[in-house]
Amino acid sequence: MYTQPDHITALDLPIPERDRLPETFQKYFAICEEKLGMVPNVLKAYSQNPAQLDVFSKLYNELMFGESGLSTLEREMIAVAVSSSNGCYYCQVAHGAAVREYSEQPQLGEMIVMNYRVAELSARHRAMLDFAIKLTETPDRILEADRQQLRDAGFSDSDIWDIANIIGFYNMTNRVASAVDMQPNPEYHALHR
Amino acid sequence: MYTQPDHITALDLPIPERDRLPETFQKYFAICEEKLGMVPNVLKAYSQNPAQLDVFSKLYNELMFGESGLSTLEREMIAVAVSSSNGCYYCQVAHGAAVREYSEQPQLGEMIVMNYRVAELSARHRAMLDFAIKLTETPDRILEADRQQLRDAGFSDSDIWDIANIIGFYNMTNRVASAVDMQPNPEYHALHR
Amino acid sequence: MYTQPDHITALDLPIPERDRLPETFQKYFAICEEKLGMVPNVLKAYSQNPAQLDVFSKLYNELMFGESGLSTLEREMIAVAVSSSNGCYYCQVAHGAAVREYSEQPQLGEMIVMNYRVAELSARHRAMLDFAIKLTETPDRILEADRQQLRDAGFSDSDIWDIANIIGFYNMTNRVASAVDMQPNPEYHALHR
Amino acid sequence: MYTQPDHITALDLPIPERDRLPETFQKYFAICEEKLGMVPNVLKAYSQNPAQLDVFSKLYNELMFGESGLSTLEREMIAVAVSSSNGCYYCQVAHGAAVREYSEQPQLGEMIVMNYRVAELSARHRAMLDFAIKLTETPDRILEADRQQLRDAGFSDSDIWDIANIIGFYNMTNRVASAVDMQPNPEYHALHR
Amino acid sequence: MYTQPDHITALDLPIPERDRLPETFQKYFAICEEKLGMVPNVLKAYSQNPAQLDVFSKLYNELMFGESGLSTLEREMIAVAVSSSNGCYYCQVAHGAAVREYSEQPQLGEMIVMNYRVAELSARHRAMLDFAIKLTETPDRILEADRQQLRDAGFSDSDIWDIANIIGFYNMTNRVASAVDMQPNPEYHALHR
Amino acid sequence: MYTQPDHITALDLPIPERDRLPETFQKYFAICEEKLGMVPNVLKAYSQNPAQLDVFSKLYNELMFGESGLSTLEREMIAVAVSSSNGCYYCQVAHGAAVREYSEQPQLGEMIVMNYRVAELSARHRAMLDFAIKLTETPDRILEADRQQLRDAGFSDSDIWDIANIIGFYNMTNRVASAVDMQPNPEYHALHR
Repeated sequence: MYTQPDHITALDLPIPERDRLPETFQKYFAICEEKLGMVPNVLKAYSQNPAQLDVFSKLYNELMFGESGLSTLEREMIAVAVSSSNGCYYCQVAHGAAVREYSEQPQLGEMIVMNYRVAELSARHRAMLDFAIKLTETPDRILEADRQQLRDAGFSDSDIWDIANIIGFYNMTNRVASAVDMQPNPEYHALHR
Repeated sequence: MYTQPDHITALDLPIPERDRLPETFQKYFAICEEKLGMVPNVLKAYSQNPAQLDVFSKLYNELMFGESGLSTLEREMIAVAVSSSNGCYYCQVAHGAAVREYSEQPQLGEMIVMNYRVAELSARHRAMLDFAIKLTETPDRILEADRQQLRDAGFSDSDIWDIANIIGFYNMTNRVASAVDMQPNPEYHALHR
Repeated sequence: MYTQPDHITALDLPIPERDRLPETFQKYFAICEEKLGMVPNVLKAYSQNPAQLDVFSKLYNELMFGESGLSTLEREMIAVAVSSSNGCYYCQVAHGAAVREYSEQPQLGEMIVMNYRVAELSARHRAMLDFAIKLTETPDRILEADRQQLRDAGFSDSDIWDIANIIGFYNMTNRVASAVDMQPNPEYHALHR
Repeated sequence: MYTQPDHITALDLPIPERDRLPETFQKYFAICEEKLGMVPNVLKAYSQNPAQLDVFSKLYNELMFGESGLSTLEREMIAVAVSSSNGCYYCQVAHGAAVREYSEQPQLGEMIVMNYRVAELSARHRAMLDFAIKLTETPDRILEADRQQLRDAGFSDSDIWDIANIIGFYNMTNRVASAVDMQPNPEYHALHR
Repeated sequence: MYTQPDHITALDLPIPERDRLPETFQKYFAICEEKLGMVPNVLKAYSQNPAQLDVFSKLYNELMFGESGLSTLEREMIAVAVSSSNGCYYCQVAHGAAVREYSEQPQLGEMIVMNYRVAELSARHRAMLDFAIKLTETPDRILEADRQQLRDAGFSDSDIWDIANIIGFYNMTNRVASAVDMQPNPEYHALHR
Repeated sequence: MYTQPDHITALDLPIPERDRLPETFQKYFAICEEKLGMVPNVLKAYSQNPAQLDVFSKLYNELMFGESGLSTLEREMIAVAVSSSNGCYYCQVAHGAAVREYSEQPQLGEMIVMNYRVAELSARHRAMLDFAIKLTETPDRILEADRQQLRDAGFSDSDIWDIANIIGFYNMTNRVASAVDMQPNPEYHALHR
């Protein structure tokens, strides 16, 4: 039917053997394996350029795990809603698994992939995802009224800054992944069902 | 996080108790339970009007299981691609499970939900799904060249007729399901992973 | 200028001579001729597969002429508005004629073909057609608020179910007709002007 | 069902009595009545401002009846295709009647209103209308290749200039008519059927 | 990097030498040079056909400089907003310079080119440009409510007529300019910075 | 006419006084002032969170000034084309100035803001910007054929990786800037005209 591609990306990139990577990244990859059971392919792809890998992974960790008024699950919900709107296969697979994990509600992960609008969400989460989709699909049409809806749903201005940055981040990675046909690690599919 | 709705649809419809249904439907529902482990909610919803249930289920069975040059998996692949384009939660869940089952490739079900364009499909299946999406999204722009691409991929004119009818059918059911917020049976999520 | 095609569809389909059809359909076609002055080409096209013709025509008759809180004209208005949005030539011609007939207002048929938004409709009909177009164009964006607008315009939940099914039905037939370049019977053009 | 509006536009404009108009326009209106059987409402609307009426009607007459490599029917076909894409009720009614008249093929008028893509047109007319729709819908995406397709279909560079101006003109009038809810004279509907 | 085209349009048109033009136009061009420091290329292009040049320039002058409740700056703001939505290079350059000139706020010209929604405008100007963009992008969706918003912002019905005509005019010229790759005079770029 | 906002963003964020910033950032800001004549507002906005400012500025510098087969001007051209498609005022202003600077062709900066398709670009730059816009507008539709067009225009696979990352980066920053109504420093407008 369908042939599973055996590439990380469709580009011919000089991805080094893992034991040729700078030691920091060897350690980082070991931690990934311990925590996730794999080294995500996105990190392998960026490892072709250690300077890029360094800043990319720092930005990712800062936005997804740094101090914030948003819970980790909320950040992952944004990741999946944005990636669904952009049709990014890699990010829907990887972050869909994360929503299943953090919510302990496997259906929620699928629902945000398929159409978050049908989910019976709290007013807070509905406002958060509505903003995520509007900013993703029509960034030029965001007005003060849109920011106010987030405030009305209980978000502080610092939270809105974080929401904007996380939405922005997945609009970046979705496009990198789609541009190069990045393949998610097959392990994600069975996780947290 | 998310509250699983306990309704079949968001409408207040006179769905009868199962033992009040005409005997044919009681038998039909028993067969569903035997084969699928459940009575799909779409059939329960239509059972409020036995005449509608009768014609709807006959059309469904004719198009999905009647004589055709298309395999059952191919028909289910169309169902999922169309339902993904239309953002129909019910049909992506129910027919995504069917693609996982018939293909024995769970990832294929997810891939067509998330973005069928990234899948490494045969030329036949690529042409079939490209036509499905064009007919779904811009039905007014279908030209002879589009039909010819199906012929070039090996489909007969009778196959094209069947493809058109299956694409049409899911454009109908997607809209009925979305219009009434039809909820898929929770059992689907775990099937054929 | 323009050459009238002499085909029923652009596909090479095994449409049988009328006297080779099962007797029920010969009778059905005779009734059509009596009532409409012709056998609609859509029925001739489906007659290549008697099982399909049977379920298609039963679904059509159930939705358009079965018990419902919607008048026949209202169902035809939905048919034309949906078909206009989808750019389906066959259905705009055939059901445009029906709106001219049932309304006895020829301009109303043209208006719904051209842009129903300009018509001075009752609040009930405006709400009905607004829902039809939203469900046709962005089925993934239908929310409870949309259903509520129909209730506010006086429709019962059973009416909404019927509206959803009729909208769905024309989203199916529009795509079948466009996929195969189905040609309307030339007789329609002059009817009920 | 539907209430025929009795206004020319939805705006409260100082449209003068006909006998108060400058004499040139009284004559012009008399000619319209003789040739068309009516004074088109668009002219009545512009008559509130004689200076505007003067330049508008001169531009209209220059583009539609001036020297050109395009036949009058071709100019009217462009008018209808553009007006259909823009959903302009007034212009579809008025110029649809003109296509029926000049082509002596009533179906052609309806076809261009409903979806010109299904018409079996000559390569020249197909290229002309494809250009009209692309320039109407995505003017920012016109490239040299689009102009070349017109040349390949036999149009001279002067013809292309005329085509561009006629497409432009209806993109203007469509928006004026829609902005003010301009109503076509009821006489158009029955003409040239 | 980029090669400045040396054509007025991409078409091969019989544009006459200036001293072969009818005397009225020679005078008109002299006035342009005096006031603007150049003869705008759009006038040179139309000069291939004196009858067209005559009506085009009269309509332009009537709409942009005739009696109206709209200031010249307001008319130019509409010109730029519409031209930005349509991606018309010629008109954004030429009328962007005019907004810089009339407003004496160079940033305002750039802002309307780039995204008028971010500008802190008066309610009157916001309503005017919102209407301009809606009428430009979705002319078929204009309703009485849209006209009412203009009235609520202080515009009279005669003003709305003028707004509609100016929006319409740039929807015409944008398409003519894009269709023929009309190049703005290089002088515009440095004006009124 | 228009009131210049005096905020950096529309959010109430704890942006520290410059002399309270960690010393590295004080130095970084001093370098900006020396080189650009200002500290870009985007850096001031991020300075509310030193950890974010650190990774954001490193990613920016890596992508825009790190080793690559793309020239700095090419990266800036991508920045402006993407920002124009997304309607981001901040980035069009800031990077439009950069294109004017690096190209020494002020018109090129305006052209990419207004509609890059009209520019007479080399095949390399046309392919690069076409890819940028397709990845920005329809990231789900990128196929191997799109990557191949970049290769055919002379880009290596490593160049494509860089192109993808720069396009992604501006799809991130455009959304952050639009989400928070970030205002560009007024100094940009007059630079490099």
